[in-house]
Amino acid sequence: MKFSDESVANTLADVIGCLEALDVQVVLDNSTQGLLEGEPPTVPTSVIGETCDLAVVIGGDGTLLSAARSLVNHDVPIVGINRGRLGFLVDVSPDGGLEELIQIVKGQYIEEHRAMLRTRILRDGECVADSFAFNDTVIRVRDLLQIMDFDVIIDDVLVTHQRADGLIIATPSGSTAYSLSNGGPIVGPTIDALVVQPICPHTLTSRSLMVDAESTIRVHLWDDDVAKAQVVCDGQIYMDAMLGDMIEVKRNANRVRLLHPENYDYHRILREKLNWG
Amino acid sequence: MKFSDESVANTLADVIGCLEALDVQVVLDNSTQGLLEGEPPTVPTSVIGETCDLAVVIGGDGTLLSAARSLVNHDVPIVGINRGRLGFLVDVSPDGGLEELIQIVKGQYIEEHRAMLRTRILRDGECVADSFAFNDTVIRVRDLLQIMDFDVIIDDVLVTHQRADGLIIATPSGSTAYSLSNGGPIVGPTIDALVVQPICPHTLTSRSLMVDAESTIRVHLWDDDVAKAQVVCDGQIYMDAMLGDMIEVKRNANRVRLLHPENYDYHRILREKLNWG
Amino acid sequence: MKFSDESVANTLADVIGCLEALDVQVVLDNSTQGLLEGEPPTVPTSVIGETCDLAVVIGGDGTLLSAARSLVNHDVPIVGINRGRLGFLVDVSPDGGLEELIQIVKGQYIEEHRAMLRTRILRDGECVADSFAFNDTVIRVRDLLQIMDFDVIIDDVLVTHQRADGLIIATPSGSTAYSLSNGGPIVGPTIDALVVQPICPHTLTSRSLMVDAESTIRVHLWDDDVAKAQVVCDGQIYMDAMLGDMIEVKRNANRVRLLHPENYDYHRILREKLNWG
Amino acid sequence: MKFSDESVANTLADVIGCLEALDVQVVLDNSTQGLLEGEPPTVPTSVIGETCDLAVVIGGDGTLLSAARSLVNHDVPIVGINRGRLGFLVDVSPDGGLEELIQIVKGQYIEEHRAMLRTRILRDGECVADSFAFNDTVIRVRDLLQIMDFDVIIDDVLVTHQRADGLIIATPSGSTAYSLSNGGPIVGPTIDALVVQPICPHTLTSRSLMVDAESTIRVHLWDDDVAKAQVVCDGQIYMDAMLGDMIEVKRNANRVRLLHPENYDYHRILREKLNWG
Repeated sequence: MKFSDESVANTLADVIGCLEALDVQVVLDNSTQGLLEGEPPTVPTSVIGETCDLAVVIGGDGTLLSAARSLVNHDVPIVGINRGRLGFLVDVSPDGGLEELIQIVKGQYIEEHRAMLRTRILRDGECVADSFAFNDTVIRVRDLLQIMDFDVIIDDVLVTHQRADGLIIATPSGSTAYSLSNGGPIVGPTIDALVVQPICPHTLTSRSLMVDAESTIRVHLWDDDVAKAQVVCDGQIYMDAMLGDMIEVKRNANRVRLLHPENYDYHRILREKLNWG
Repeated sequence: MKFSDESVANTLADVIGCLEALDVQVVLDNSTQGLLEGEPPTVPTSVIGETCDLAVVIGGDGTLLSAARSLVNHDVPIVGINRGRLGFLVDVSPDGGLEELIQIVKGQYIEEHRAMLRTRILRDGECVADSFAFNDTVIRVRDLLQIMDFDVIIDDVLVTHQRADGLIIATPSGSTAYSLSNGGPIVGPTIDALVVQPICPHTLTSRSLMVDAESTIRVHLWDDDVAKAQVVCDGQIYMDAMLGDMIEVKRNANRVRLLHPENYDYHRILREKLNWG
Repeated sequence: MKFSDESVANTLADVIGCLEALDVQVVLDNSTQGLLEGEPPTVPTSVIGETCDLAVVIGGDGTLLSAARSLVNHDVPIVGINRGRLGFLVDVSPDGGLEELIQIVKGQYIEEHRAMLRTRILRDGECVADSFAFNDTVIRVRDLLQIMDFDVIIDDVLVTHQRADGLIIATPSGSTAYSLSNGGPIVGPTIDALVVQPICPHTLTSRSLMVDAESTIRVHLWDDDVAKAQVVCDGQIYMDAMLGDMIEVKRNANRVRLLHPENYDYHRILREKLNWG
Repeated sequence: MKFSDESVANTLADVIGCLEALDVQVVLDNSTQGLLEGEPPTVPTSVIGETCDLAVVIGGDGTLLSAARSLVNHDVPIVGINRGRLGFLVDVSPDGGLEELIQIVKGQYIEEHRAMLRTRILRDGECVADSFAFNDTVIRVRDLLQIMDFDVIIDDVLVTHQRADGLIIATPSGSTAYSLSNGGPIVGPTIDALVVQPICPHTLTSRSLMVDAESTIRVHLWDDDVAKAQVVCDGQIYMDAMLGDMIEVKRNANRVRLLHPENYDYHRILREKLNWG
């Protein structure tokens, strides 16, 4: 169980009550520390991944991103309970006696497997930093408003040289996040593809590129300039890159298991979130 | 063998000579009639599909679209010989003694399977017209510059109501054709997805939608208006639709088999065609 | 006074009553014929332009477009009364005893001068058709989904050759209409500029072009193809063009005089119409 | 006279020789120091603005931006000599014995007046930083990939609240620079308008906005977040902003005077730079 905000204490108490009434043993993630008086002892998220049958995330889509990165290589499914506002990922309502959560615990759910990214920064052939990403990996100049020169190499073929503010590589889940603001397509979650698109490209023929999810995408930062680059995963994890580095992005071998209420429908959520009449 | 243009007579004669030197029996499509003096008898394209081991198309990408629609439900592979200008689909050079064609006939090739669309117009539950499409199916108002009201329904879920000039549904192959002019993403040919995107949408939150290729896409034309609609496949086949009709687009069960020279690389062609430095 | 819809009869009666109570003499446009029992005799719109001090339009923005084209070369100001839904142009409410209209008649208003277009089709140097446009002139292929080849010439300089579905030339007023659906910028009504933008351009470096409103824009349709083109003004006036024709678009010498309530604010309407939070 | 690069020494020597042969007295900007052996004494750019009849800039468009900001409030015209590659601004060729420069000095030229921006950062009503900009003022988050909350206020009217990576305000000159990469329109240099457009807006109905150049544009950074913002003029001048600040952007009272060869044509340069066939 993972939390990002003290205001979720009430929902947390409700969820604990609900689960205990179902004879489910509850273990708290250590991010909850101090949220509840007399709360049970908390453990690291990785321990939850190893020992639990279900992870319950309370918060917004951003909270679930973080939990998903922690849990992806464990085999534990995740349920997201929103706090009043429907998310793309956290779609269980905290209202109505948590009836949707009860149904899921009783085995009435739709299970979805979402692709994640594994991003590694290679310098002189060695990996100097790496991270998972649920939504996207963004490569960009740090600090300055400066064009970045880079090659995009897909499965060892140079596809394009770009001069741009940066590059977004997004999963289907991430296609409704930052990539969408940047003009990218909306990609259904079952599609085995990644979105690759430059930010403010200098080359006017640049377009969003849908790349087979089996591909290895490598971005080579040209070294003819002095600025620092940064690699950002899910807008939450920052890694420094130097010009000359190779950034390698692949789909992670394991997927995230998301559990949804039985009435879940991706296209309906899309329609509601984007105000499509 | 299929031709679209009398100026290809020379290439045709070269190809016939080349194939006969390899002891390959050549049958001509009846579109070639009169192109060559003393040419062998010609047969309908469907007969070629049924009886030949290989179909050779001479021309541009547009020529291959037409051949592919004729041959998709036969199991015959297609080779495209361009006439001086590299295409996305016709990538065998007519120069150099047709060396690439010779290698392909000898079994040195890369085989690609490309998705096609099957489009049906349903009126009162009955199919009144249907067509294959290699690149795209476009639904639009005929004659007038008028907004069309329609629902997009994916696997029985209403995804969006649109007011727009029309709608494009494209295969990955079609993503570099009309859909690209309309702002769509470039989709790698191995990705199991279709592009769905409105043309000049009145709803400003509209975006390109990547839909799982297993889906059935249905477009319901609202009947509150008087204009006629048309459904256009590959920009070559025109079918009339009436408001109130349901247009159903699915991936065809069979794919088109394209043979390429062994040095074929989709991303390299992309880079050359789009002038990506 | 001009009407487009029988359902406006009640508003019409209210407006007549309101104006007569102010001792204003009312003359009806002949489009109102039969809307009211015992209504005053009606006259052609041009007579209204010549003889009246104020034209009152009841309807939506589309209704006002038509009135504006009829009245632009007379010096009569126009007021637009909407029918329940705020428009960009028709912004006087029919509710509240028509208080806003009363204030305008009494001289309390903001007057705006909006640019209009004059479009002429030239064939072998002769004008074969012409029309005004308040929002936009659109040049496009008629009937078929076919690319059109044309040159865009601004003040006698060839600016761009395009292969596209068509071309939009919009006034600032028209920048929130069709041009916006096609990805164009929103242009404040006081800016002396026209928007020129291709529809689905084949050239991926094409962009919206803001052209000085003093310019003469000429579009030369190449004659290497067989299809017919059409020139459409405000989505309401259709003129046939042949390939080889030259279409000339200039700002009209006279502007349309629009009267707004004193609390009129263009940017506020923009914000409301586009749901900008 | 201003220089940005040691490799321009040869062109510098040529230009000095050319001008002295015309009996023109040459004064060097102190950025040239050390470029030439035995060169004349150099002075600050502001002194050049005050004392010279003509400023000659050697370099690329970026070099001219900097000179223009220094010279805008003096009344000195600027000529830009490119170094082998045509720019939008530096369009005098260094080849052919500098014949174009000679003609300009002899009075054969086209003079253009380009708008510039004046940007001020207001904190608690006081101006804490300010700068000119020839192309654009960009407001963005510094360091982090984080959404910025801000209001755009035009002439005291709240036009839009945005959640975006940032905002670009560009002159017509700047419309072919960063703004173009971000999807903005191309604005002819004589149009009295500014481009206002968000970068990666969260609100999908956001569009480029053309604002009357007489307007005062104010951007109010909401203060509910911790990150720092930066205001960047022409990609060259960086100013720190704090959330809560008001950034005010107006057209500068004085324009920059650019001198071009007599065959200058804006639309022709556009066509060449953007590869419009």
